[in-house]
Amino acid sequence: MLDYWNNYPTIQEKLKAVCSLIETQVQVRNQDIQVALTNLAQAGGKMLRPALFLLFSEIGDKAKQDEEQLIKVATSLEILHMATLIHDDIIDDSPLRRGLITVQAEYGKDVAVYTGDLLFTVFFDLLADAMNGSEFLHTNARSMKRLLLGELDQMHIRFDQNQTLSDYLRSVNGKTAELFWLSCIEGAHFGKTDVETQQLAGRIGRNIGVAFQVYDDILDYVSDSETLKKPVLEDLAQGVYTLPLLLAKEAHPEAFSPYLDKKQAITTEEAQKVSALVLEYDGVEKAKEFALSFTEKALAEIELLPDSPGKTMIKQLTSDLLGRDY
Amino acid sequence: MLDYWNNYPTIQEKLKAVCSLIETQVQVRNQDIQVALTNLAQAGGKMLRPALFLLFSEIGDKAKQDEEQLIKVATSLEILHMATLIHDDIIDDSPLRRGLITVQAEYGKDVAVYTGDLLFTVFFDLLADAMNGSEFLHTNARSMKRLLLGELDQMHIRFDQNQTLSDYLRSVNGKTAELFWLSCIEGAHFGKTDVETQQLAGRIGRNIGVAFQVYDDILDYVSDSETLKKPVLEDLAQGVYTLPLLLAKEAHPEAFSPYLDKKQAITTEEAQKVSALVLEYDGVEKAKEFALSFTEKALAEIELLPDSPGKTMIKQLTSDLLGRDY
Repeated sequence: MLDYWNNYPTIQEKLKAVCSLIETQVQVRNQDIQVALTNLAQAGGKMLRPALFLLFSEIGDKAKQDEEQLIKVATSLEILHMATLIHDDIIDDSPLRRGLITVQAEYGKDVAVYTGDLLFTVFFDLLADAMNGSEFLHTNARSMKRLLLGELDQMHIRFDQNQTLSDYLRSVNGKTAELFWLSCIEGAHFGKTDVETQQLAGRIGRNIGVAFQVYDDILDYVSDSETLKKPVLEDLAQGVYTLPLLLAKEAHPEAFSPYLDKKQAITTEEAQKVSALVLEYDGVEKAKEFALSFTEKALAEIELLPDSPGKTMIKQLTSDLLGRDY
Repeated sequence: MLDYWNNYPTIQEKLKAVCSLIETQVQVRNQDIQVALTNLAQAGGKMLRPALFLLFSEIGDKAKQDEEQLIKVATSLEILHMATLIHDDIIDDSPLRRGLITVQAEYGKDVAVYTGDLLFTVFFDLLADAMNGSEFLHTNARSMKRLLLGELDQMHIRFDQNQTLSDYLRSVNGKTAELFWLSCIEGAHFGKTDVETQQLAGRIGRNIGVAFQVYDDILDYVSDSETLKKPVLEDLAQGVYTLPLLLAKEAHPEAFSPYLDKKQAITTEEAQKVSALVLEYDGVEKAKEFALSFTEKALAEIELLPDSPGKTMIKQLTSDLLGRDY
């Protein structure tokens, strides 16, 4: 999946180093788990979080940077992301992730619990190695905590038809935007930009993160499982009501409640009907507008970054990533 | 459960501070989880790991110690222990822990996964707070990794009748003795003893940890569930063959295999028969001798510690803890 970065050769090169470091970090005696982890890492999405980290580090003063440190911190972000993915798949009973059978589907929940835990220790170990003594050690701990609280919030309001837009936003801010925020602010920090630029980078990251999650939630309503590489309408069946549904339901709650009242017992056909209603009542259109407002906020803030090749790439990526085709 | 420390008033006082810090650290929006965590902490075993940490810190130079740091590190050890307990209970499908319904039995595996994860972040946050910049940050990360690898090893050999004494020891060293090692070496370190004393403390901790786990495994064969505050013979049903069984089976494998061949399908009556065989073939007696050899190693090494009230208390605790009644 590093092909995604063909137009960003400096970033692609560094992401290769991140991949190698992940491979050496996930060496364990248990062969099954090692294979599972290596596969997950190799199938590995776009590696967006380490990429954002590296892109924001590009803005800084190269002369002051520690290349090895940058690769380690970039790696820690992907490892933390992998750990949360593995544990999320336990909660969601997900059979597929990145087009591969999930750790929990292949080896059971038990192995998945410890495999995720093991990745948390690798994350921690990388940070102990790369930033012992830095204030960013706290930043990482607190960020990881907010990430988990976001997951807990989302789980807590499952199947709750009274959940609001602000519940959704709080959960997205925790479970997705938080790690984007961390990747960007940390990239600017270890890239040795000034504190103001770091804060700006964090805000840009958070806005990209929200837009990214909203588009991801839209995909659940407009895509097929082959394109998505995981089952469609999975969130709906799990009682996670995302933005397209919330926005469509706002004006016509009565149309949705007969289906949503069924909770876990909703059938595939009924879920398809909900999906059709979401489209009919402009839930997808409205969600796109919502995402666009965050993308625009991000783009406006990117303009405020100091001029540099890094800035150009960040602008390019934001358009590439959030100007998705449907 | 702090009554256990009535004869160690200095330690008991500090453990109260540890309990308070745990309570403030597990404040989360999700009420259910907070109640579960607070209950677990309050029901909280003997708090052996923070106690050992504090006992070993007593040997050091009080004038150089940072009391607040000591409480934070002591707390981190109990938090890490709690996190692993919660995740272990998922693996074991345990209904009871410390006489209370487990998080997974009460709220489901999903909540238990995230609750354990949340405690990992609290652990990490406490360390970032208490020892940012210290080499012991690495020590903690590596120790946590070995702890998890111990769990993975144990899971990997479940129901394997060919597992050996050395498999058992490796798993015990990882899943139990590692955290005892960490508690003791870290207590000596942050208590400001010299490096040699720290190493000695670590060895003592590891030996106490092995003996402690062996006695714990013996309890499974000689105790009732009311005394134990969790179901008896739970390990056996989960395919975890502990020392009493391994030692009894060594001489008479044919007596055990008809039962063990049933794996998960073993009935309560059959498990009781296995338990009777373990006693008949001296598995418990031999395991006690084995534990005793580790206790004696620990006691001999404790003698090498510099004379101090701390040393006296450590000697007392080791006898109290490992001279259990059956």
